[in-house]
Amino acid sequence: MEFQSVVRARRMVRRYDPDRPVPHEILRRCLDNAVRAPSAGFSQGWDFVVLHTDPERETFWSATTSDGAPDDPWLSGIRAAPVLIVCCSHKDAYLDRYAAPDKGWTDRDEARWPVPYWDIDTGMASLLILLTAVDAGLGSLFFGVPAEQHGPVHAALQIPVSRTIIGVVALGYALPGPKSPSLRRHRRTGADVTHWGRFGT
Amino acid sequence: MEFQSVVRARRMVRRYDPDRPVPHEILRRCLDNAVRAPSAGFSQGWDFVVLHTDPERETFWSATTSDGAPDDPWLSGIRAAPVLIVCCSHKDAYLDRYAAPDKGWTDRDEARWPVPYWDIDTGMASLLILLTAVDAGLGSLFFGVPAEQHGPVHAALQIPVSRTIIGVVALGYALPGPKSPSLRRHRRTGADVTHWGRFGT
Repeated sequence: MEFQSVVRARRMVRRYDPDRPVPHEILRRCLDNAVRAPSAGFSQGWDFVVLHTDPERETFWSATTSDGAPDDPWLSGIRAAPVLIVCCSHKDAYLDRYAAPDKGWTDRDEARWPVPYWDIDTGMASLLILLTAVDAGLGSLFFGVPAEQHGPVHAALQIPVSRTIIGVVALGYALPGPKSPSLRRHRRTGADVTHWGRFGT
Repeated sequence: MEFQSVVRARRMVRRYDPDRPVPHEILRRCLDNAVRAPSAGFSQGWDFVVLHTDPERETFWSATTSDGAPDDPWLSGIRAAPVLIVCCSHKDAYLDRYAAPDKGWTDRDEARWPVPYWDIDTGMASLLILLTAVDAGLGSLFFGVPAEQHGPVHAALQIPVSRTIIGVVALGYALPGPKSPSLRRHRRTGADVTHWGRFGT
């Protein structure tokens, strides 16, 4: 697809066809594109845990939902997604990179970092996965993992404590489904968010 | 351009043609695409300060470089970029959004947030600017502002303290220039960063 069409078509999909798997070639392309994201100092502190079999995904859902939960149509639509990709950032890769001779922050002091580029860069990589899915005719969703579920997901998927889960990408073929209530909010336009010359008031 | 071509063509450009301005239509498209990024709860906590005149850009460079700095060819290549976009995240927009009735985190407690989605989402929006530039035949660069320069840039551009500068996008027509020394590092491939089923060791 044309780039501009992909950008305009991307939306969060919350209901998936459980009977149409994600072709392996498309999944690989998503991950090959993810590593094309920029990263501070080319640190590339990102990892992706791909869950594409029923038991693998069940491991994730068991760690994040309680057995007694009522049958939530919202959740069941998302649970039908045939692929989940747990997106992990790796702060140490950045601290190590910037302690290298050509950077020289040998103290590895986090106070040097005005913003967490490990999380930001992994977010950019995750966006490339979302866009690649749209380009291939699939639907995608990015959702966060509540703070209290990070421990259980780390344990269930053997994610090292050095990694931080910044969110999960769901992939699959979209079915018509509910729109997010958040969309009732006004979308800020390009003009709304642009400040010419200075921020001002 | 085709989406896949844009993803593969994107790279950080560090030398710009000072005599070719960025067409206004392309600049607007960059910002219109930026707001197509996803955001947690559709919070959209992002703002972009566009500097596209000589005095505007000089305001930024004066705040971030010392007069006595030697004539650095690297910096002079970047300084030739006809447009700078200072990308700002807005944490309060997220705390406010999630205190709304349909979310209900009325305590606005930052500890609820496992990762700073304000910074991550603004990073995704910034990536859309970079990619849109490539799609339009321009070059682009994303660079961070060192922690000690945030105060001066905030003051010079009248950026409210509620906003955090996550980085700056430079836009313009590319000239052949130096490659980042960071590129000597091995690029982690899609296969390198993918963990099937579980992270493991």
